[in-house]
Formats: sequence, C-alpha cells, structure tokens
Amino acid sequence: MTIWLQRLERRATLRARAGLTRHLRPRRSAEEVIDLAGNDYLGLSRHPEVVAAAIDGLTGYGLGATGSRLVRGTTELHTALEADLAGWLGAEQALVYSSGYLANLGALTALAQPKAVFILDQHAHASLVDGCRLAGAETVVTPHCDLAAVVTALAEAAGRPTVVVTESVFSVDGDAAPLSALHQAAREHGALLLIDDAHGLGVLGPAGAGGAAAAGLAGERDVVVTATLSKALGAAGGVVAGPAAWIRHLIETGRTFIYDTALAPPVVAGARTALRLARKDDARRDELRQRAGHAAERLRGAGLPTTVPAAGVVSVEAADAESASAWAAACRERGVSVGCFRPPSTPDHRSRLRLTVNASLSAAEFDAALDVIVACAP
Amino acid sequence: MTIWLQRLERRATLRARAGLTRHLRPRRSAEEVIDLAGNDYLGLSRHPEVVAAAIDGLTGYGLGATGSRLVRGTTELHTALEADLAGWLGAEQALVYSSGYLANLGALTALAQPKAVFILDQHAHASLVDGCRLAGAETVVTPHCDLAAVVTALAEAAGRPTVVVTESVFSVDGDAAPLSALHQAAREHGALLLIDDAHGLGVLGPAGAGGAAAAGLAGERDVVVTATLSKALGAAGGVVAGPAAWIRHLIETGRTFIYDTALAPPVVAGARTALRLARKDDARRDELRQRAGHAAERLRGAGLPTTVPAAGVVSVEAADAESASAWAAACRERGVSVGCFRPPSTPDHRSRLRLTVNASLSAAEFDAALDVIVACAP
Repeated sequence: MTIWLQRLERRATLRARAGLTRHLRPRRSAEEVIDLAGNDYLGLSRHPEVVAAAIDGLTGYGLGATGSRLVRGTTELHTALEADLAGWLGAEQALVYSSGYLANLGALTALAQPKAVFILDQHAHASLVDGCRLAGAETVVTPHCDLAAVVTALAEAAGRPTVVVTESVFSVDGDAAPLSALHQAAREHGALLLIDDAHGLGVLGPAGAGGAAAAGLAGERDVVVTATLSKALGAAGGVVAGPAAWIRHLIETGRTFIYDTALAPPVVAGARTALRLARKDDARRDELRQRAGHAAERLRGAGLPTTVPAAGVVSVEAADAESASAWAAACRERGVSVGCFRPPSTPDHRSRLRLTVNASLSAAEFDAALDVIVACAP
Repeated sequence: MTIWLQRLERRATLRARAGLTRHLRPRRSAEEVIDLAGNDYLGLSRHPEVVAAAIDGLTGYGLGATGSRLVRGTTELHTALEADLAGWLGAEQALVYSSGYLANLGALTALAQPKAVFILDQHAHASLVDGCRLAGAETVVTPHCDLAAVVTALAEAAGRPTVVVTESVFSVDGDAAPLSALHQAAREHGALLLIDDAHGLGVLGPAGAGGAAAAGLAGERDVVVTATLSKALGAAGGVVAGPAAWIRHLIETGRTFIYDTALAPPVVAGARTALRLARKDDARRDELRQRAGHAAERLRGAGLPTTVPAAGVVSVEAADAESASAWAAACRERGVSVGCFRPPSTPDHRSRLRLTVNASLSAAEFDAALDVIVACAP
C-alpha cells in the first residue's frame, strides 16, 4: 500500500514542478470580491424568490430525496420541474439528474449499442468525453468546430448508428458550435445530435431556452439536449430533454438515473422558481450578452488574446500555466475572482483566464473588474 | 433519427413483455404511507435542526454553489463538512462530491494506471461497476462475498497495482462483506481496499462511523472509503475518505471532482448538522438494527425467503419480476412503501422486495407495515 501512496506522491511532485498544483480556496458567505468566475449568470442563486422556494421545498419534503428516483426519490416537485423544463426547452419530455455530469453520462451510455459511433468535438466537456468512454462506443474526436471533419466522420460511419456530440457554447473558450449545420449534416446521415447546452440555457434563445432553441432545433426528433441547472438557474443538478421514447429509455435503462439518489427537494423547488424568473428576464439576458461583448472588446483593446463570446463566457489566453496562476492570484488580491484554466482542464493544453459574466453585478463593479484584469496582466 | 426512435421503442416493447416496465410515482409532501423504501435510516432528512441548518446555508450562500470546487464552488461549509467527515470516519482527509455515484467514479478512475487490476464483488453497486469500466482497468468480477476467489485473483495479479473493491453492506441484499479478511488478503498482496460504505455510514461502527470503522479499518493507509450523504445523513452528495496523499491526488486529477459543480451549500450545511446528530444517536442506531433483525425474523417466520441483515437493509425474494411488482403494488395500496428490485437492477437477475428500516417510524407503524408485507405476499 505504501507503493500506491509513493506513486501518488511522485505524481504530485511532477505536477508541482509543472506549475499544476491545485488548491481549494473556501469562500466565506460575506466575502468582498467581484465574481467573474462563477456561473451564476443571472444572479439567481441568491434571488429572494429562489431562496424562499427552496425553503418551502425543505419544510415540505425535508433535505434529501431519501432514495433513487424509481424508489422514493421522485416527489411532485421533480415531476413539476420536469414539465417546466420540457415546456421551456420545447422538448416532448425532460428528465432531471442529480448533476449535469451524470446527465451526460446517462444520455451517452444509453446510446451504447453494437456498432455505434460517437463523433465528439475536441473541446467537449469532460462529462461528454467520459460518457463516450463509459458507453464503450467507437469515438471519433474531430478538431474543434470543424464541420468538414464531422461530415467526413459521418460519411465514414455510414450504415452505423451514429451520434454527433457537441456543446452549444463551449465551456473553455465560450465560442459557439455551428449547431444548424451540424444538425443538417447529422440528419442527412440519419445520425442523432446531442447538444450539451450548459452554458446556453438561460442565456441564449427565445425566453432563454438555450443554444439549441436559438438554432431552431427545439423539439426536433433527432436532437437530444442536456444541460445543467447549476449555471444560469443558480441551482444544482442536470437535465436531459428530448422525445418521449428517449426519456422512457433513460428511465427504464439509464444506470446514472436508476442507481443515483434523486436531486434534493429544496434544490428542485428553487430551480423551478429560478426557471420561471430566468424565462421572463430578457432584459437581464440582454445585459449579460452586452457585457460579455464589451469585456472581450476591452481586453482585446488592451492587447490581450481574447475569444469572441457567444454567450457569457470570455476566455483570455496566458503564456503558460504559471503565468495564468499568477495573473489570477493578482486579480484575487485586488478583489476580483476569475477562473484560471490550466492543463489538464483545457482540451488544447493551453492556459487561460476564464471570465463568466454575472448580470447581477453593478455596471461600475463590472467595469472595475475589467480594469483590474487588464492591470494585472503579465 | 426515426431509426433511433424505432430501436428504442422496440426495446421498450421487449421490456414490457418481460414485466420490466418502470414508472416514476411522484410522492406528495404529506402522503400517508409507512416508508420502508427510502434510505433515511435515522429520519434525519426532516429533522428540525437539519432543516434549520440548511436554511442557514441557503440564506448565507444562496442555493447553488455557482461553480466547480476549484473555481467558485468551495465554501467554508464544504471545508468544515470535510473536516467533520474525516474526523468521524477516522481518515486523514475527506473530499465531498455532488453525488455518491460521482464519488465512486472519481475514486476508481483516479486509480487507473498501466497494468492495474480491479477485483470487484459481483454484487457491487452500479457506480462501482461503472467506475471500473471508466477507469479502463482490467476488472476481475468475483462471486459474491467469495473470499477464496478474491485471494486467487490477488495471487494472479501479483506484481501489478491491484484494488479490491467492495461494499461494506450490500445494497441489494443487505448482507455484509468480510471486510477484515478482505483487508488482510489485500495487505498481503500490497493491494488497496476500496470500501463503499453507503449503507454502513451512520448505521454501523463506533458512533456510526460505518462498516469500515466497525471492522477496525478506520485510518488504515491501504484503505479508501467512499460513502453517500444521502442515506443515514438524510442529505445528498458523496464522499471519499483516505490518506491525505490520496485526497490530494483526487483534487488535482479527478475528473468527476474537477469538472462538476460543487454540492449545493444548503445541502452541505444540512449534512453537517445531520452528521453531528447521527454521530451521537447510538440509541436510534440500536433501535434500527434491532428492527432490521426483527423484520427478517418475522418474514422468515412467515415462510418468506429473507436475507440476514447486517445493517438496515432487508431483502425478501420474489418468484419473478411480475410477482415482485404485484407484491409491491399491493403493499402500496395498503399504505406501505417498499422497494421493488428487478433485473437489471439486481446483480443476479432475481427479483425481490427491499425493505430499508427507518428508525424514526413508531414501533406500531413498523409492526403494522410488516403485517401488510406478509399479508400481501404472493
């Protein structure tokens, strides 16, 4: 056993030498920082109505769901949230998971079948990569947002059950997938399109229904949408939305659905209220996207290599892992919290700061935060 | 795409013919049933102090954690809960995940390395099976609780990094793994022992510290314990506990830790209070185990094939999937909720009712529930 621990310690030493040590930094409830790192895009996690709904859920049902969804875990809150999500996303049905990670694992493993081929964008989230791995299907990784490569992979998979897997808004660089073109290509080959809309839900599309809805793909029978309730909805948990036959398949066979304790009732109740608020707040959504565009211009204007944001994620490249860490630490010391993404959290082994725009900040706070990021740039 | 849906519908038809259709039955907050199906062993999910702590967490931090643990998701609540869990379990450190499923996937995939061998009990939970699959390691499935088979597999894996993977109390039949003997065998071969203590935590061991602690394995440097906060603690989320080097490895490299939104602050706050209550309530724990033993005797006395419970899970075999469903439905109609486990939720393709004892029921309710189960037996 000491052999196991010695191995782990050797690997930790190698990571430290490469500047890849990671630290958990607990935050206090009343900390005085400007948050450009969290995914609470619309500020709903602390919205009084969301908090009140969660308290109702707590007093009505208790803290935990006490069981898996098919045993004791399904409450009327879960069913109501699923109906609301399906209505919002324009899908026939929706199914809630205890995390977005498990939703992606569930959706992809349920597609496992003999001869299946998964075509996966190189920048896809870890949960999608792990879903493909766990499904055990042949997986073709295509260069990032390379439509021609997807079309070629589809042609090579002709006659086999095929799934094209993408995010709508990529979590690392905040850029958009060419969803309409991907859907057209998938349809021509009889393939399914699975869209992880984690960073699009609540931010893009009509009434915030997400990137898939923005691309006109809501309710298409060859599209499955997954998302998380932990970003724009300020809650926790994940969802898979699609045709009813598909959801039934997940309920009856999906391992990460069947064998997992259901999402906690207060979280479900709060998410439901957050959905209602997110759905109607086009003004805050507009502000969010405007701020993202403004942030990218401001940083690019300062000579920093910045992505073009499709939603609320803005990414600024750093020279290497250590300078990204130092940059983020300098921002933190000056009261601005930013994401710091280093290998292996980045699909291209490059390091960057990741900013996520929070529309509930004041305009003055937001501008001051951008000033700090520019001033602290290496 | 219609091909995909046609395939799903064909498979649904086959399941229906085999009596394997599954239905979500939403429960109301004020339902009038006796619950022998949920995992809220100590009744903590609705404990007023747990609910109050969760409300504090909500008002202090909001509903969601707003980010992954290494970005914005770690609050002082998370760190405090991890310290409490480590202290309770007698481990050097503990790490909280958003679900027990993800804790198991994380612990096992972090062990993936060239030539690794995982030795897995046939009755192990789906999340352990999926963890072995996702790790991509060679996995030897041994017959249920067959120590000799584990010893043989260890001998065959000589010279390779090896992990013996088991539950402490098996979720299907409620029986106990021979933990001391497994540990001795693992140690003799320089292997790690990974124990999923989901159904032992809060129920077995000194101060409820779980099955691993009951077997004297707390703090052993070749033991990793995983558990869920969603059963005896009445909350949600999972935990991995073990040597500090091990936890550091998970923080710096574990995909289901790094890329997942942190457990929601109200759930963390509630779980902390539940831990404090569970730790000191030996009386309720004794009552729980006594009831489990009584239930097994009562059912066996009525001629029903019943397992010997090591903790709070009692399993009664049914002839087939349809009779198990009918039995559970009859109990439900008479106001008793029981678990109904059918293939593919069972590792041996047999069907049974699964009863989980809830020590917060009155003795009269509990006895009445047993009467109903016996009366409804096919």
